[in-house]
Amino acid sequence: MAKSRPSKRANSRSRGKMRAANAPAPVSAKVSVARDRPRAELKVALLGYGTVGRSVAKILCQNSGSPLRLTHIFNRNVGRKKSDSLPPSIRWTERIEDVLASDADVIVELVGGLDPAGGWVRRALDAGKSVVTANKLLISECGPELVDLARSKGRRIEFGASVAGGIPAIIGIQEGLAGDNLYRIAGILNGTCNYILTRMEAIGASFQSALKEAQELGFAEADPSSDVDGIDARAKLVILAQAGLGLRVRAEQILARPVTTIASVDFMYARDLDCTIRQISLAEKVVSAEAPHGVKLAGAVQPALIPSDSLMAHAQGSQNIVTAFGEYSGRTVFSGFGAGGDPTAVAVVSDLYAIARSAGAPPGALPSPAKVPGEISGDFTVPHYLRFVVKDRPGIVAALAAILANYGISIDALLQKPGFPHSALSFVMTVESCDSAELNRALAEIARLDFHVEPPLCLPIFSE
Amino acid sequence: MAKSRPSKRANSRSRGKMRAANAPAPVSAKVSVARDRPRAELKVALLGYGTVGRSVAKILCQNSGSPLRLTHIFNRNVGRKKSDSLPPSIRWTERIEDVLASDADVIVELVGGLDPAGGWVRRALDAGKSVVTANKLLISECGPELVDLARSKGRRIEFGASVAGGIPAIIGIQEGLAGDNLYRIAGILNGTCNYILTRMEAIGASFQSALKEAQELGFAEADPSSDVDGIDARAKLVILAQAGLGLRVRAEQILARPVTTIASVDFMYARDLDCTIRQISLAEKVVSAEAPHGVKLAGAVQPALIPSDSLMAHAQGSQNIVTAFGEYSGRTVFSGFGAGGDPTAVAVVSDLYAIARSAGAPPGALPSPAKVPGEISGDFTVPHYLRFVVKDRPGIVAALAAILANYGISIDALLQKPGFPHSALSFVMTVESCDSAELNRALAEIARLDFHVEPPLCLPIFSE
Repeated sequence: MAKSRPSKRANSRSRGKMRAANAPAPVSAKVSVARDRPRAELKVALLGYGTVGRSVAKILCQNSGSPLRLTHIFNRNVGRKKSDSLPPSIRWTERIEDVLASDADVIVELVGGLDPAGGWVRRALDAGKSVVTANKLLISECGPELVDLARSKGRRIEFGASVAGGIPAIIGIQEGLAGDNLYRIAGILNGTCNYILTRMEAIGASFQSALKEAQELGFAEADPSSDVDGIDARAKLVILAQAGLGLRVRAEQILARPVTTIASVDFMYARDLDCTIRQISLAEKVVSAEAPHGVKLAGAVQPALIPSDSLMAHAQGSQNIVTAFGEYSGRTVFSGFGAGGDPTAVAVVSDLYAIARSAGAPPGALPSPAKVPGEISGDFTVPHYLRFVVKDRPGIVAALAAILANYGISIDALLQKPGFPHSALSFVMTVESCDSAELNRALAEIARLDFHVEPPLCLPIFSE
Repeated sequence: MAKSRPSKRANSRSRGKMRAANAPAPVSAKVSVARDRPRAELKVALLGYGTVGRSVAKILCQNSGSPLRLTHIFNRNVGRKKSDSLPPSIRWTERIEDVLASDADVIVELVGGLDPAGGWVRRALDAGKSVVTANKLLISECGPELVDLARSKGRRIEFGASVAGGIPAIIGIQEGLAGDNLYRIAGILNGTCNYILTRMEAIGASFQSALKEAQELGFAEADPSSDVDGIDARAKLVILAQAGLGLRVRAEQILARPVTTIASVDFMYARDLDCTIRQISLAEKVVSAEAPHGVKLAGAVQPALIPSDSLMAHAQGSQNIVTAFGEYSGRTVFSGFGAGGDPTAVAVVSDLYAIARSAGAPPGALPSPAKVPGEISGDFTVPHYLRFVVKDRPGIVAALAAILANYGISIDALLQKPGFPHSALSFVMTVESCDSAELNRALAEIARLDFHVEPPLCLPIFSE
């Protein structure tokens, strides 16, 4: 009997086949889902008929036994959109007044942005309608105010779709872990960056070519700045910090560093450290008697090294992951598809069911009032990865080491791949756990030395 | 500059240090958590003051601003238990009548088992109290009936702690993914088995010595049969199948195969297949026009091969993981600590907050009525791992291959490690994806051959 290693075959053959004998999968949507769905009908009006809106409409119209009835769809150029095979009873309109003055019980806002969507949401709440929204900008900016408005009207505003698409992270953290004191939320919250970085890792692509591929496949916008600069993830982090940590911060108070500085060489060096690179969003509550209000927040959205065998590194392509750390429950992880029409629509429709179930109950999920942290920083005390591109000459490492030593920062390792030209030599230093603010001061001094071809790159190294 | 590989150091140093500068962690429980907690007080009576009960009492008494007030603790030998530093206002009793006749609004049942706990839960609901329970046996057996009883009284029964301890799997699946049609639930639901199997994997221990270690560390009971035979995980799978798939099954209808058959040699062969071995609980809904009620269930709790780099394999020690597969959201994962006093207490206290929040709202989470599947089997069409221990002689593989071929089953690979005696030669065969029922028929025939030293071991190979 010969020994063989059939692993790849066995695995690839079985991929996606963990199914029952003779099972056609996935299960047809025609099966009525006999879950806990109340009978009273809820009339739903949809604002925005793009990718997510179409998926929401599809799901709502497929479930015949559902208490949710789609009555209105508002969009620009509704004539061109209308061609779909939705029930003729649905009223299509380009006039927002038609929706706001209608008898719809719930408005699903999928227009996005602060204006005019925010005004429409306020007017819907004022008119006694509940609201479901996927609008992370609006909720990160005005969530608590909108929840208060909804409460004052005896209505609800739900926004499960505003963070991590189909992953039930907000309800999981805010209700499922309500009994804990959470002190840290960390995650991969932007599918575009994750797609780009996992492609750079997998095929050694440059940032630009991975971005181009993502754009061609629809994973990145023509203008990707909100994603790659961390603006999108930052809005989500603000919502999670409020939901999980009970902290009220404004997005612009949170450090956001772009992933555009990451080069393919960084993945090569990261691999030598048994790490990979991802855009990590992290918010941590720190109790501090000195801080005003008794609590500080450390929070940032930035590219970081994480262990290759970590759960975060497992999030491939456009997947998202949210981890919550609690005093009693330890680390709890939520992961899945954080974007895309269908997963995001699941979050929207789940919120609609929550409203249908809870008719008359106190509204909404967003904590209010939350604490305003007395101090907000983007500094973490962790090991760091420093990548330099230099015009090589003797004494470079000595110069770097001397400055780092002046700041009390210990070098952990030096890594240099062969094959770089002397005119642009790329090498890496890792430093032992230190406060990133202190390291940044050292790096400002280092940046003034004369051998740099590019500014030094500094990334935190996060463990699980 | 020398190249070095400091990965282990860098990673081990940073472990657990993803914290803000100068942060003492975890955050003190004294910080009031400004999350969404209503004001109206809820009087809570605790039945059972073991590991989980003590954690629940601790959390309830630490949160001063909470609407939850612990008023009664019921336990046997209450005199010996009473020594704790809980508020003197709490009434300790050994008489269940004291609790049932009290003014407590909610009973937290942590006694476990069907009897007498089930009767107490019914009487509490009858008396107009809500109930929170961690009792997986009771909920898997009587969940829908108890939810109906609670509804008829305008009260709630919550059981988030009955599955996967601190992981908010039930609320995540049932409410967070309510908008999807879920068709498959898979997970690692028993921390004892997972501890034993991950130890066998890590140090090459035998089943018995890993079990002994687990018992010494408190991860396994003196009588571990409910865990290692799959009975514990099966009750949880029944609850998840109801919550996620809307299917009502009885535990004894689900196949449970023991993990006691796994030997350390299986981990050696699994590694050659880039796999490891875990106790996997899996339930899958299959739409079938032929089946009575139009739906079948394939479900089992059993040891199985899974890819080493899969998320399931990531669950180390006593951790749990629950994955849900939906038609629209794809795969969503929940993981964390599935057992232990504090994590389970978080689930209990979170359920208490849910009851506090929803006073007057329609009760409870368990879907009712659910569909009864017309057919239930433990058969999956996947690749399989077959391990034989034989008295070696020529023609063994030919004999096995002939029988498998008769059943239309294709061999994928043969693996044989060196060093086994001819009198007890251990080798492995993997077969391509086939229905396990058909394979079992072939194996029954194979088992009648005369060269076996042990009965053949057959494990499904599940991919992600």
